[in-house]
Amino acid sequence: MKSETNISKKHVADLLIAGRARDPGPGGHGRAPANIALCKYWGKRDEAINLPLTPSLSVALGELGAETVLEPIDAADDIFILNGAEVDMRCEAARRVVEYLDLFRPVGLRLRVDSRSSIPLAAGLASSASGFAALALALDDLFGWRLEHRALSIMARLGSGSACRSLYKGFAEWLAGERTDGMDSYAVPLADEWPAFRIALLEISVAPKEIGSRAAMRRTVATSELYRRWPARVAGDIAAIRAGIANRDLEQVGTTAEGNALAMHATMIDSRPAILYWKPESVAAMEQIWKLRAAGLKVFFTMDAGPNLKLIYEEGQSAEVRRHFPGLREVAPFGF
Amino acid sequence: MKSETNISKKHVADLLIAGRARDPGPGGHGRAPANIALCKYWGKRDEAINLPLTPSLSVALGELGAETVLEPIDAADDIFILNGAEVDMRCEAARRVVEYLDLFRPVGLRLRVDSRSSIPLAAGLASSASGFAALALALDDLFGWRLEHRALSIMARLGSGSACRSLYKGFAEWLAGERTDGMDSYAVPLADEWPAFRIALLEISVAPKEIGSRAAMRRTVATSELYRRWPARVAGDIAAIRAGIANRDLEQVGTTAEGNALAMHATMIDSRPAILYWKPESVAAMEQIWKLRAAGLKVFFTMDAGPNLKLIYEEGQSAEVRRHFPGLREVAPFGF
Repeated sequence: MKSETNISKKHVADLLIAGRARDPGPGGHGRAPANIALCKYWGKRDEAINLPLTPSLSVALGELGAETVLEPIDAADDIFILNGAEVDMRCEAARRVVEYLDLFRPVGLRLRVDSRSSIPLAAGLASSASGFAALALALDDLFGWRLEHRALSIMARLGSGSACRSLYKGFAEWLAGERTDGMDSYAVPLADEWPAFRIALLEISVAPKEIGSRAAMRRTVATSELYRRWPARVAGDIAAIRAGIANRDLEQVGTTAEGNALAMHATMIDSRPAILYWKPESVAAMEQIWKLRAAGLKVFFTMDAGPNLKLIYEEGQSAEVRRHFPGLREVAPFGF
Repeated sequence: MKSETNISKKHVADLLIAGRARDPGPGGHGRAPANIALCKYWGKRDEAINLPLTPSLSVALGELGAETVLEPIDAADDIFILNGAEVDMRCEAARRVVEYLDLFRPVGLRLRVDSRSSIPLAAGLASSASGFAALALALDDLFGWRLEHRALSIMARLGSGSACRSLYKGFAEWLAGERTDGMDSYAVPLADEWPAFRIALLEISVAPKEIGSRAAMRRTVATSELYRRWPARVAGDIAAIRAGIANRDLEQVGTTAEGNALAMHATMIDSRPAILYWKPESVAAMEQIWKLRAAGLKVFFTMDAGPNLKLIYEEGQSAEVRRHFPGLREVAPFGF
């Protein structure tokens, strides 16, 4: 399952903006929502340009996301400001941003990157998805490219795989694609609006993870025997979730999304050494959700590469769900 | 993966004791150890006669096990006494014993079955393995058949799959076999003795399980997509464990047994609806073991279809392990 290609990010970036200006305007602005996958992205077929082994499907978190302002500066180095605080340019997050900017800008252009995230970072939510989507939009604005959504989605993907799904409101599907250059691997929005749909963040632990999601994904693909059936799992799940969304069938969407997340964690548990993001409190929360569901409350969960849960339910169950989980951060992806 | 055969237990039982006496002596006695699989039995290719989809490998629990005395009685019904208390013949456990006796005895013969188990039943240990192995041995003694170990192992298997491994001390491997009548599916002992080997029971919860292991096994085979790679997982693991035992390599046996148990639980977690035997305290115990191992203590775990852990280590680590887990029930499979 290893990448056999030699396609570089720089090559894809050049393809995306071929023939377009590299001279910046006075500034650029971009804004993008965070997203939570209902059918997970887990495993790459190409690590260099973030090509997935399977499609995935997400819902955007409405107002929760990132906003970025770019400004050319007369300086020797870039400046990266995150939530008002200057980030040391030697740290990993800053280096990823600089490398990303290098893909698109002319040599010598330095930028001030001012980024704000409204996601509770401590909640273990992948802030890189909305961050790189906002950055791609800000670059498009700065250089005046007016790229199409498809190109912007590919552009965001080069920064962080799941960022390609953060270009849209509501539900989005990342088409895995088949090409080695990834030009057919981008996200498209689903037309369905589901105003009653709710997703809520249940924080279990804010302790730093022992293994990051990129490394976990890599170890799973390399060592989990059970992972070989993951693509088949996804094929069934994504179709079921798509159909469930079309029919506003919360039961189908919820059970499938929950099963899909558990399947992803199962492939991690099967990795060697095992990867277990679950804390005792994660299991306690799962038990509670199953108990509530057995008692008739329609509430489901999904989990990403971390110990926290994201609850899925509809507007009508909101009060009851929040009563059982105080401190829940509820999101209405289509507005309240 | 469903059974396509129509072989009955009765047919196999008749094959096993073909031409042998059905007249009982005055009494029969049998004794067999419990066993813990280091490479798990998970999934059947034939439900009627307990044929597994894969081989498995276990270690017997020394003195912990079952002892059964059979006595012909002049009565309308059998009597089943478990640990000194008469069992209601309408309950599931009693019915399984009666059905098992019916496979071998002449019509009309009634028996008093007096069985004692030295396993802490509350520990969630499969008592059916040692129970049916002891019962098979007691029947052999009662009728004076003097069956070979291979036949006795098949005979025990008809009562409970993993019972076929409880015929031996030390390590045993259950050969999956290929025949539809199961006459090549039995356990054989491994020649290796490993006096320093220790296995210990860590009780997490004695609450009744929400789903029994037979039903869990069935649901996993029927609904887990990831389960399809389980046979490949087992093929690698059983070879690694066998080699590790031959070399007295605790690290290899321990990591592989632990990974194999986690893989089995991963297939359950991938089942739909999900099967999660882990309690919050199970996860806390796993975390503790991983932490101790990171600190240099050679201790590993395995888990069966329940929340409890079984710790694997060597004599030299015994004091240290027991200091961290008070209340541990330690077993020396080859004697202290």
